[in-house]
Amino acid sequence: MTVGDGGRDGDGRPVLLFAHGFGCDQNMWRLVAPAFAQDHRVVLFDYVGAGGSDLTAWDPGRYATLEGYATDVLEICAELGLRDVVFVGHSVSAMIGVLAAAREPSRFAALVMVGPSPRYIDDEGYVGGFGAEDIDELLDSLDSNYLGWSAATAPAIMGNPDRPELGAELTNSFCRTDPRIARHFARLTFTADNRDDLPRVGLPTLVLQCREDVIAPVAVGEYVHRAVPGSALVVLDATGHCPHLSAPEPTTAAIRDFLAATFASRA
Amino acid sequence: MTVGDGGRDGDGRPVLLFAHGFGCDQNMWRLVAPAFAQDHRVVLFDYVGAGGSDLTAWDPGRYATLEGYATDVLEICAELGLRDVVFVGHSVSAMIGVLAAAREPSRFAALVMVGPSPRYIDDEGYVGGFGAEDIDELLDSLDSNYLGWSAATAPAIMGNPDRPELGAELTNSFCRTDPRIARHFARLTFTADNRDDLPRVGLPTLVLQCREDVIAPVAVGEYVHRAVPGSALVVLDATGHCPHLSAPEPTTAAIRDFLAATFASRA
Repeated sequence: MTVGDGGRDGDGRPVLLFAHGFGCDQNMWRLVAPAFAQDHRVVLFDYVGAGGSDLTAWDPGRYATLEGYATDVLEICAELGLRDVVFVGHSVSAMIGVLAAAREPSRFAALVMVGPSPRYIDDEGYVGGFGAEDIDELLDSLDSNYLGWSAATAPAIMGNPDRPELGAELTNSFCRTDPRIARHFARLTFTADNRDDLPRVGLPTLVLQCREDVIAPVAVGEYVHRAVPGSALVVLDATGHCPHLSAPEPTTAAIRDFLAATFASRA
Repeated sequence: MTVGDGGRDGDGRPVLLFAHGFGCDQNMWRLVAPAFAQDHRVVLFDYVGAGGSDLTAWDPGRYATLEGYATDVLEICAELGLRDVVFVGHSVSAMIGVLAAAREPSRFAALVMVGPSPRYIDDEGYVGGFGAEDIDELLDSLDSNYLGWSAATAPAIMGNPDRPELGAELTNSFCRTDPRIARHFARLTFTADNRDDLPRVGLPTLVLQCREDVIAPVAVGEYVHRAVPGSALVVLDATGHCPHLSAPEPTTAAIRDFLAATFASRA
């Protein structure tokens, strides 16, 4: 892991811990995280296997399920002595946050889920947005040519064709990821089913959903909102799967409003 | 132009003339057009400046507006003696078909618009999906690095990240296009405003809309449907801007149903 720690603490305000998604690293939060650094301790990190982490520390056993990544989160919390953590997770990290909070609820104060999906594959009475054969194709294609897959897939995930530099950035981020680790993490991500974990979330939760997202469609955000007791859903005026890059202002504003409403009593 | 003509004719059934969009060529219709070749004369072509056309025949004067491309269509109709034409146009070609039909209405029997947009830029009381500054950014980026732009943009336009070969195909198609011609055609396409032409369409018209399309959102398809008198709107169970490639079966079925309903009296 590579951890960047804003360092402020102890004034009773929650800590913000930003967790990146598949094929990304902490740099993806650069347009959102600084807005909170004035009033909060802000912690950024790369999961083992991503960004500037020690790739030799990654092993397929520890990271055989999303619980391995949740362990990364809890180790960071322990190492830095974090309490009152608002975990802000993008994409698969939203579910990693759910798992981490279930294991050590006392560490966490709230969850912010950016483009979450508890299950990508459609099921009876559940729309995930993908058929099982779609995900098989995606993973086969990724397995056979990771760089080609990244170049053809990342811009579609990013959307916003009027700003091709966004798609190019995500492509480059995917391409920087070790292909062996990416294959393994993609398989975990796209075949996971965390639906049963959602009703057990006992924290104030914000679901941030883009109005058009090929990875996590609106129906999925609405599902997460219904499944997590007492959660708030904000449909951002944003498109694509990475509003923290493509629409940082509304993303930041929604998180700020949620923090204000959730922690008003402590102010 | 490069014209492929199925050759059948004269049995009173309409001719299908398939017209490709920006950065594409007639090959894009390969999954749809053959389904109609049994019962219809099918004509495929590349606009001057695209695909296998004679690039030296392209000049910025003739193609200074979309009317130049409409002239291509009318020249093909004249050369092949086409009547009873069902013009099937993708994206910008939907508007080119509107212009061609306005100039020689007697040639045409119907219009099929696949992902049409009469104007990409939002206006008072009109949602096109893009701000003026979005389109400026898109065109600036295209001007400065056409191949890079293509690689980062085409997959976003195609959508369907589970099938990256689709985005890769569109990228390759964009990249095969002469950059000078592409720049010019893109500027025409993305700054055109054909809203006033729609109420004058006097032909049976089918609007095919994907339920998620970053280039032509559902609101735009609905606008076209309302503006073209008596038109039919079908929202396909498909995503992205190229359902003829990503979802050829529902695209074919919708065109087939439209033809059956429109030409039932002639059967």
